[in-house]
Amino acid sequence: ENTFDLTSHPHTRLNILTGEWVLVSPHRSKRPWQGKVEAPAQVQRPSYVEDCYLCPTNTRADGSKNEAYTGPVAFTNDFSALLSDTPSGDVDDDGLLVAQSQRGLCRVICFSPRHDLTLPEMEVPAIRQVVDLWVKEYEALKAVDYIKYIQIFENKGDIMGCSNPHPHGQIWASENIPMELEKETRQQKLYFEKHGKSLLSAYLDKEVKAQVRIIAENAHFVALVPFWAVWPYEAMIISRRHVQSVLQFNEDEKTGLADILQQLTIRYDNLFETSFPYSAGMHQAPVNDGSEHPEWHWHMHFYPPLLRSATVKKFMVGYEMLANPQRDITPEFAAEKLRTLPAVHYKSRQL
Amino acid sequence: ENTFDLTSHPHTRLNILTGEWVLVSPHRSKRPWQGKVEAPAQVQRPSYVEDCYLCPTNTRADGSKNEAYTGPVAFTNDFSALLSDTPSGDVDDDGLLVAQSQRGLCRVICFSPRHDLTLPEMEVPAIRQVVDLWVKEYEALKAVDYIKYIQIFENKGDIMGCSNPHPHGQIWASENIPMELEKETRQQKLYFEKHGKSLLSAYLDKEVKAQVRIIAENAHFVALVPFWAVWPYEAMIISRRHVQSVLQFNEDEKTGLADILQQLTIRYDNLFETSFPYSAGMHQAPVNDGSEHPEWHWHMHFYPPLLRSATVKKFMVGYEMLANPQRDITPEFAAEKLRTLPAVHYKSRQL
Ligand SMILES: O=P(O)(O)O[C@H]1O[C@H](CO)[C@@H](O)[C@H](O)[C@H]1O
Ligand SMILES: O=P(O)(O)O[C@H]1O[C@H](CO)[C@@H](O)[C@H](O)[C@H]1O
Repeated sequence: ENTFDLTSHPHTRLNILTGEWVLVSPHRSKRPWQGKVEAPAQVQRPSYVEDCYLCPTNTRADGSKNEAYTGPVAFTNDFSALLSDTPSGDVDDDGLLVAQSQRGLCRVICFSPRHDLTLPEMEVPAIRQVVDLWVKEYEALKAVDYIKYIQIFENKGDIMGCSNPHPHGQIWASENIPMELEKETRQQKLYFEKHGKSLLSAYLDKEVKAQVRIIAENAHFVALVPFWAVWPYEAMIISRRHVQSVLQFNEDEKTGLADILQQLTIRYDNLFETSFPYSAGMHQAPVNDGSEHPEWHWHMHFYPPLLRSATVKKFMVGYEMLANPQRDITPEFAAEKLRTLPAVHYKSRQL
Repeated sequence: ENTFDLTSHPHTRLNILTGEWVLVSPHRSKRPWQGKVEAPAQVQRPSYVEDCYLCPTNTRADGSKNEAYTGPVAFTNDFSALLSDTPSGDVDDDGLLVAQSQRGLCRVICFSPRHDLTLPEMEVPAIRQVVDLWVKEYEALKAVDYIKYIQIFENKGDIMGCSNPHPHGQIWASENIPMELEKETRQQKLYFEKHGKSLLSAYLDKEVKAQVRIIAENAHFVALVPFWAVWPYEAMIISRRHVQSVLQFNEDEKTGLADILQQLTIRYDNLFETSFPYSAGMHQAPVNDGSEHPEWHWHMHFYPPLLRSATVKKFMVGYEMLANPQRDITPEFAAEKLRTLPAVHYKSRQL
């Protein structure tokens, strides 16, 4: 008990991408729970739902009709948080009340015409079609000159605030560089300027050598639980090649991304034999801001809330909101659990 | 439509306490919801529950028995996230894998022996007893020389991860200064050094003059929706007097704090006629770190998740986790709603 040890003693870990810390309490996962228990995710959804505004041929909120689409499809969000016609302006009352107008564009991407198919249940070629659509959308949004950052993401599952269960992701492209990206740009720049290589290349070398936090790998990507993970089963996908954005991925890499997405999300579903909820999204270099961003290294974060089972999640509440994020199980424990799960989806095994 | 306007156009606002920004999308509250709906909070709880480990005379997880307590009571958390006997040590692998051991103490504070009484349902003198216990606990934890920060907080309601419905708060005291407090210390110090008065005194002057974000006031405290609020009905209590911690409150101020807590939480309960969930906590100066922290101004944050009703909350998910916090209604709209609600609890009105 007298030597400090990451597997049993409370400690903080540094997130090298943001410069922030997480409090890890490895001993605390045994506390009793008389709190909230979630309803398990509905097991079988129908493949088409009449009042779903994302299913093919249905009518959307703005009155337009969806095409009879057969692969992934993108359209403008009917309730965009950012709009392209916002007039510019700002407020500054003695540095105490400070505001700036923001322009932007919000897109919705349906992964499949089928209401019941999530990424882990799709075949690699079908996921590859989603990757291709992300690249196409990214390119089009980058062509809008006032856009400085393009956030591709997915909220999966109703406990992650998904407002419609039809499998879909979103893209919010903004006139400013959002805060998380400011932090990651700063940290990556500091490292790149000092060492002449990307922060995540150096980090990936360490992880591939240590193996303890690796979940899955292929020729082009690694999925791992980062050393500084906040959410119990948080994961990151890092490209082996140091590229700034999806625009630089070659054909093999795009298929590799589809493959690693399938590998990771199947393990997620297998963990508690449920459609595993998460918010996930890519981080890539800012655009149109006058810099090439050689420091930037493409990666993707997965933030899943479940902790003990399909029905008990980790709450990021009081202490976490007011003081500092905190986790109960170690990243190494989480990675081992995920890595040793079957690579085949539990639903196909049950057939 | 051509002049930028905070009530209708998307914009970002600066949080002067942390230096961070929030994206405000005033036009977006009309979007349809086919997502998660929460079960409404149970309306009437019994005043004593046999298997509640916080009720008087019951047995706790560590085998000890609770006293037959009659007012608020404090004890050490049986599942503390921080422990006092953690050996010191650290890890630093080329600045890529970085960790530090952490010592600390975690306390639980039952607000009342009654399982069914939350703060808004308690009388001011009973809340004043809770305030006195906070002060006593704060003083005792400050006396532990390795403690650098004392976080007093409450998670209220099962949707805020409260692991036991018996009304209680917590205190986590840590060897390090948690991240949110580092940010607020830095921002307050910058202002204090430049202007010779506290950032929150200057801010409070603006708010009292403008009135539009005020929820309630008394002689010693103001409750308001901060200009940079992230959560839909987020609030702050600010002391009119510039003090560093609860230890400096005089008798009138301690009663004033009990009163403003009651005023704010009654309005919260009245908003959707439900036991209104939130995470709340005080921010005060770090301790035992060799500085008097003249820049620090005591305040208390309330982070409630509900958005549209007792059953639909705001989800801080994909875009918020990956890029930037976002809100749909304006702080001014939220403040007006809360300010104009009855000052009497809806349950007493129904009797
Ligand atoms: O300490 P409790 O009530 O068991 O747990 C609750 O509050 C803690 C501090 O905010 C959080 O870390 C937990 O996720 C939450 O469930
Ligand atoms: O855009 P949606 O799916 O309606 O909404 C969901 O994702 C958004 C972006 O993360 C969040 O702001 C909302 O709180 C969430 O419910």
